[in-house]
Amino acid sequence: MDFAYDPTTLDYRERLVAFMDEHVYPAEPVFAAQLRERNDPWSIPPVVAELGAEARRRGLWNLFLPGSHGAGLTNLQYAPLAEVTGRSGLGPMALNCAAPDTGNMELLAQFGTEAQRKEWLEPLLEGRIRSAFAMTEPAVASSDATNVETRIERDGDDYVINGRKWFITGALNPNCRIFIVMGKTDPSGPRHRQQSQILVPRDTPGLSVRRGLSVFGYLDDDHGGHGEVVFDDVRVPAENLIGGEGDGFAISQARLGPGRIHHCMRLIGTAERAIELMCRRAVARTAFGKALADQGVVQEWIADARVRVEQARLLVLKTAWLMDTVGNQGAHTEIQAIKIAVPSTVEWILDKAIQAHGAAGVSQDTPLARLWSSARSLRLADGPDEVHRRSLARRELAPYRAASGQV
Amino acid sequence: MDFAYDPTTLDYRERLVAFMDEHVYPAEPVFAAQLRERNDPWSIPPVVAELGAEARRRGLWNLFLPGSHGAGLTNLQYAPLAEVTGRSGLGPMALNCAAPDTGNMELLAQFGTEAQRKEWLEPLLEGRIRSAFAMTEPAVASSDATNVETRIERDGDDYVINGRKWFITGALNPNCRIFIVMGKTDPSGPRHRQQSQILVPRDTPGLSVRRGLSVFGYLDDDHGGHGEVVFDDVRVPAENLIGGEGDGFAISQARLGPGRIHHCMRLIGTAERAIELMCRRAVARTAFGKALADQGVVQEWIADARVRVEQARLLVLKTAWLMDTVGNQGAHTEIQAIKIAVPSTVEWILDKAIQAHGAAGVSQDTPLARLWSSARSLRLADGPDEVHRRSLARRELAPYRAASGQV
Amino acid sequence: MDFAYDPTTLDYRERLVAFMDEHVYPAEPVFAAQLRERNDPWSIPPVVAELGAEARRRGLWNLFLPGSHGAGLTNLQYAPLAEVTGRSGLGPMALNCAAPDTGNMELLAQFGTEAQRKEWLEPLLEGRIRSAFAMTEPAVASSDATNVETRIERDGDDYVINGRKWFITGALNPNCRIFIVMGKTDPSGPRHRQQSQILVPRDTPGLSVRRGLSVFGYLDDDHGGHGEVVFDDVRVPAENLIGGEGDGFAISQARLGPGRIHHCMRLIGTAERAIELMCRRAVARTAFGKALADQGVVQEWIADARVRVEQARLLVLKTAWLMDTVGNQGAHTEIQAIKIAVPSTVEWILDKAIQAHGAAGVSQDTPLARLWSSARSLRLADGPDEVHRRSLARRELAPYRAASGQV
Amino acid sequence: MDFAYDPTTLDYRERLVAFMDEHVYPAEPVFAAQLRERNDPWSIPPVVAELGAEARRRGLWNLFLPGSHGAGLTNLQYAPLAEVTGRSGLGPMALNCAAPDTGNMELLAQFGTEAQRKEWLEPLLEGRIRSAFAMTEPAVASSDATNVETRIERDGDDYVINGRKWFITGALNPNCRIFIVMGKTDPSGPRHRQQSQILVPRDTPGLSVRRGLSVFGYLDDDHGGHGEVVFDDVRVPAENLIGGEGDGFAISQARLGPGRIHHCMRLIGTAERAIELMCRRAVARTAFGKALADQGVVQEWIADARVRVEQARLLVLKTAWLMDTVGNQGAHTEIQAIKIAVPSTVEWILDKAIQAHGAAGVSQDTPLARLWSSARSLRLADGPDEVHRRSLARRELAPYRAASGQV
Repeated sequence: MDFAYDPTTLDYRERLVAFMDEHVYPAEPVFAAQLRERNDPWSIPPVVAELGAEARRRGLWNLFLPGSHGAGLTNLQYAPLAEVTGRSGLGPMALNCAAPDTGNMELLAQFGTEAQRKEWLEPLLEGRIRSAFAMTEPAVASSDATNVETRIERDGDDYVINGRKWFITGALNPNCRIFIVMGKTDPSGPRHRQQSQILVPRDTPGLSVRRGLSVFGYLDDDHGGHGEVVFDDVRVPAENLIGGEGDGFAISQARLGPGRIHHCMRLIGTAERAIELMCRRAVARTAFGKALADQGVVQEWIADARVRVEQARLLVLKTAWLMDTVGNQGAHTEIQAIKIAVPSTVEWILDKAIQAHGAAGVSQDTPLARLWSSARSLRLADGPDEVHRRSLARRELAPYRAASGQV
Repeated sequence: MDFAYDPTTLDYRERLVAFMDEHVYPAEPVFAAQLRERNDPWSIPPVVAELGAEARRRGLWNLFLPGSHGAGLTNLQYAPLAEVTGRSGLGPMALNCAAPDTGNMELLAQFGTEAQRKEWLEPLLEGRIRSAFAMTEPAVASSDATNVETRIERDGDDYVINGRKWFITGALNPNCRIFIVMGKTDPSGPRHRQQSQILVPRDTPGLSVRRGLSVFGYLDDDHGGHGEVVFDDVRVPAENLIGGEGDGFAISQARLGPGRIHHCMRLIGTAERAIELMCRRAVARTAFGKALADQGVVQEWIADARVRVEQARLLVLKTAWLMDTVGNQGAHTEIQAIKIAVPSTVEWILDKAIQAHGAAGVSQDTPLARLWSSARSLRLADGPDEVHRRSLARRELAPYRAASGQV
Repeated sequence: MDFAYDPTTLDYRERLVAFMDEHVYPAEPVFAAQLRERNDPWSIPPVVAELGAEARRRGLWNLFLPGSHGAGLTNLQYAPLAEVTGRSGLGPMALNCAAPDTGNMELLAQFGTEAQRKEWLEPLLEGRIRSAFAMTEPAVASSDATNVETRIERDGDDYVINGRKWFITGALNPNCRIFIVMGKTDPSGPRHRQQSQILVPRDTPGLSVRRGLSVFGYLDDDHGGHGEVVFDDVRVPAENLIGGEGDGFAISQARLGPGRIHHCMRLIGTAERAIELMCRRAVARTAFGKALADQGVVQEWIADARVRVEQARLLVLKTAWLMDTVGNQGAHTEIQAIKIAVPSTVEWILDKAIQAHGAAGVSQDTPLARLWSSARSLRLADGPDEVHRRSLARRELAPYRAASGQV
Repeated sequence: MDFAYDPTTLDYRERLVAFMDEHVYPAEPVFAAQLRERNDPWSIPPVVAELGAEARRRGLWNLFLPGSHGAGLTNLQYAPLAEVTGRSGLGPMALNCAAPDTGNMELLAQFGTEAQRKEWLEPLLEGRIRSAFAMTEPAVASSDATNVETRIERDGDDYVINGRKWFITGALNPNCRIFIVMGKTDPSGPRHRQQSQILVPRDTPGLSVRRGLSVFGYLDDDHGGHGEVVFDDVRVPAENLIGGEGDGFAISQARLGPGRIHHCMRLIGTAERAIELMCRRAVARTAFGKALADQGVVQEWIADARVRVEQARLLVLKTAWLMDTVGNQGAHTEIQAIKIAVPSTVEWILDKAIQAHGAAGVSQDTPLARLWSSARSLRLADGPDEVHRRSLARRELAPYRAASGQV
């Protein structure tokens, strides 16, 4: 047992922190100004591409991706780096490490045909286009991938897709060129073999992005928003299928583990940013004749924030280590555990940081309220906490049930 | 001791519920559509005036205002009515009972000269114009009115105002014609006699509304937003002063009590709306093969929501009764208690209702996220909870200190 | 709506406070000393009887009992008095208002035959004997009275009782002369008609009190403890039945409402005692160079304690008012609500008072830890909170289910 | 970074688990019976010595002690073993690894003279005698060792001790032969050089153990209780001083770190025991027609318990690793963090386990209530949580203060 980062991690971390300090944080106000001035309300400001070019020059590109397509880091090596990127909304974009592209790239790297990889993975790896993952549907509980109702039907050499999806992150970005769509090819098949995934280029007739969903008051229009997307007799060639018919559920499971841990890693960085801002404010602001930093209640917030984030980070790191050593399936319980623990912990820390900032905390003058909305929504995204608690408890209880002769 | 509403209250309540059912709830989608279609991003949609006309016809107008200018209800009679209006964001506007106009009207009715009342109170009572109350400043702790730094200086027959205010609710509404500004006329006077309040018409040169502050992404642009307002050598006649020089703090204290209780009353209604939506969702939505309504965790949320809102409502009602029987000053502790208790309780209930709705809960497809942002910001508005807890504790401790010989 | 106590209540309250100040609090150390010196580890110290005599002289006896047998107070009048008695463990005993005798006396007054009342109610009303209510069983969920498995079988002119009960409060007091036993006379009858209640004198052969159960280390041996009681072919005459065969469930329901509200009333007094002790300690104790009373964290505890207890008290009082005006059945939801709200609220307040006292708080040198154990166990007694939340939620959901066509 | 236990740890752990299964758990009812039957209400039942003999035979003795006197394990190796011992109150006693003897042995090994080690350390290492550490005083805030008021005055070749201590764990055990007493030799010296520590044999005239303090209702009379101890002109030879005059504070600081982490390690084991008992109960108990294990609310408890305990354990392990790699001083923040995090986490888990057990949970029929009282008191022992939060926050804030030019 050893709690020190390895030399590779430390080296990357040092370079990444320098990049953040020298380029990303200074670019935050530029990004904000470009957002205000853009014509297309969903386009991505040019500073993102400039940051990306600098990140590539520095060898800080596609760090998330294991194997030969990316930096080849383990989850345990990537975790502390993802944490650093999570300190700024610009961080993941600058490094080509933002969801949902990360998960889509992993998916294509792992399950795509050579043609699919050439057409879609390559430009994604180079950051030339963006992508979306269309799974969640308004009409059914999205926490269980088997519930999707969108139909993918074979018709000659094509598949025809019909359905309605929502909260499709990135969909409104005009540069989002490709949708990976989850639907049912065989509604009467075995429960986990009914689903397939298929590639649908944005311009395919019948695909329409209807509107952006808001998260609290934010449209998240700086990274493509969250779209409601309708598929109305959308026809694509059969070779657009990813894997075989019926592989959709298994593929989506493979995508989930890394996706969840990336979110959690970044949230740890978000929490650190919040603590930093809370401490700065506490030192700078006076009430009742003394600095907030000298007031017991604020001290309790800071102490509890520190104690909680340390615990959460360790659980994320251990989960990453398990994924590396026993595989995503072997780390299933821990992946659920961080999904339960981290968003609510970070939400709590952000709430306190907001409270310490007074009215400024809820406004656009600090990043806190926006970060809060993101942490809060992660208590729902990819299944509400309650679903994960239920599942984790059932696994905890299983040996006791078995011992008492219950099935 | 008697927990039944009196006949006046019951009669108004019945008529108000009917008005909400027949006019306000059906107007919600109309309002939303008019908001989307308006040219001026801060103007108020015409349906509000139509609702107001109907409310006047039904005798449901200015219910908040005691005395001869308004409906003449006691706080205890008004509380259950305010609760009903709090069920819809449109409710208070439709009845001319929305903050900050309510507090401003009370203030003018109580402290205004006849000329001031004629010029500003009358059109406000008729709903022809809107108003703002400019107290909070970005640079100082707004929880203590004595901290304001804006200057109001006498110059011949005029006062000249310089300062920066923010989170001035309603300021961006083009129909907001008058600002009541709190500032210092005598910075070297006794601590609670330095401040004065003065009327500043919107078009006065030197007054500029710079931008709208957001609250968790919401600009609250459906009721005039929250403005940052700069006063740069703003000159108004001396007769615009409200009361005398040095009365500003006392006037603001008189304004606070009713303002706080109105917010709390409406929040109780918000909580009831949230419970109702949570129950509807719980009955309608299925997960793991049974309705949410049959799942223990959701049942706990509903039960706790009910138990908490019942307690909070009773405390608000008792506070109203105290204000009526022993005056706002005598009810000071209870007013602080509801300021501490109600927003956080309602925030909790809204959070659970959101969670029960899944992704829809954070989006624009339910009113929950928006209502949440409002409840959350009330943990800060008018002084953060921590300030009120400190003050309430000191009052609780006072007799023990005295008994032990501490001053 | 009126939040003032009526003159009868105010008069009783004044006299009761005087009695507490002059007799009960001064008797606390006497009681403690007599407990240490007694020979029988379960006997009640003589000072209790002395306090009782004084209480009777002052007309402060059997205040709990409505109707002609007792003081004839309404629930709403009794509630503030019960609160005062709850400030000291000695209070309820001194006034003959302690559980489980109160519930048993109500039961006998309401359902007992004249002979039963003469033999058992009279000496109970005079405080000459004590009683127990034997319902809870170790083997089944005690929250549902229909689950009891103890058998009461007719045999000629007698009933024969077999079963095991536990947590039978008061059972170890040698002066506890009578047990009211709940059991099944007709296990195959309709679910709510299987049960009956029967009087079993302590000395009946076959009844054995096996041991005292502890509550967080406390045997509660100052008021008869909590006994495990075995009934082994216990034979009593048929006329010992209370009401008719099959009435047991209905009788126990009638007993529950007042029992629960009495506990909650007293707990409010317990909370007030805790706040008082916390304030005294905060003023007297110094850490880091200033009194705890000047430290923000302790101030938050005190403020939150005050805010929470005010809300809880109001809900108890409203529940009492409902019981008086619409009956125990009509107040069912509110009785559940206080059962959910009050013990956990008071437990929280006691926890903070303990923390403010440091090590003394967990020890016998303050009453706090003992009071805590009592509040904590009331989250379980008479059904765990979870059962009440489930039931309350189902009632809240019922109209929505009906509206959506669900049964 | 590596989350796997090393082979030494795994080997010890396997042998320790076997010892617990084969000897310790089976001895629990024997221990309870011997406690009930002993004559001296404070003596330790003989089964403890028998377990100790077996532990020594198996090489599971003094595992806590680094260096040549003990097993020579690192903190990181010992942590998972201490966790296992924490599953049973008997565990630490059986292995000679119980507080306060562990801390006292470390102290003597590190700071004792050869004579002191021979006289007191040797019999302690062999488990022939027990010891106490007398620091806490009723009159002052015990969280700060500089506050002690007990006097240690030089008088010729002796020191004379006067003072009152309380919550001196183990003091009532008749086999507790030696007290390490903290007091002031130089009340006017520099703040951290006023204190000294001195050895006082139990039989020294003037030392009297007055009474046992209870923790909630528990006297903890199975391991010597918590004594109030008075030192009245207690005279011991000068060579009983540990270290030099003025070294007392530094020595106590050296003792604190390992003491705190041992408590936390064992609490993790306590939490695991609680989860196990909760799961067993959940599977075995039925309410409303289905097992508790199938009810959502209980599932939430189990899931949250698992998620919390995993995080807490990792923080304890990392702290142990830091103590090993950068020393106790370098691990100061983390030691405070676990002191804040672990007792409250384990208290929460125990509370839920109790609730799942119903009335049995608060009684002597499960170990839960007793374990709860221990976890709860650790939120106070060795300084209340609030003191540690304050200190941790100040350290977190220090760089921000420095950056803003505040001292």
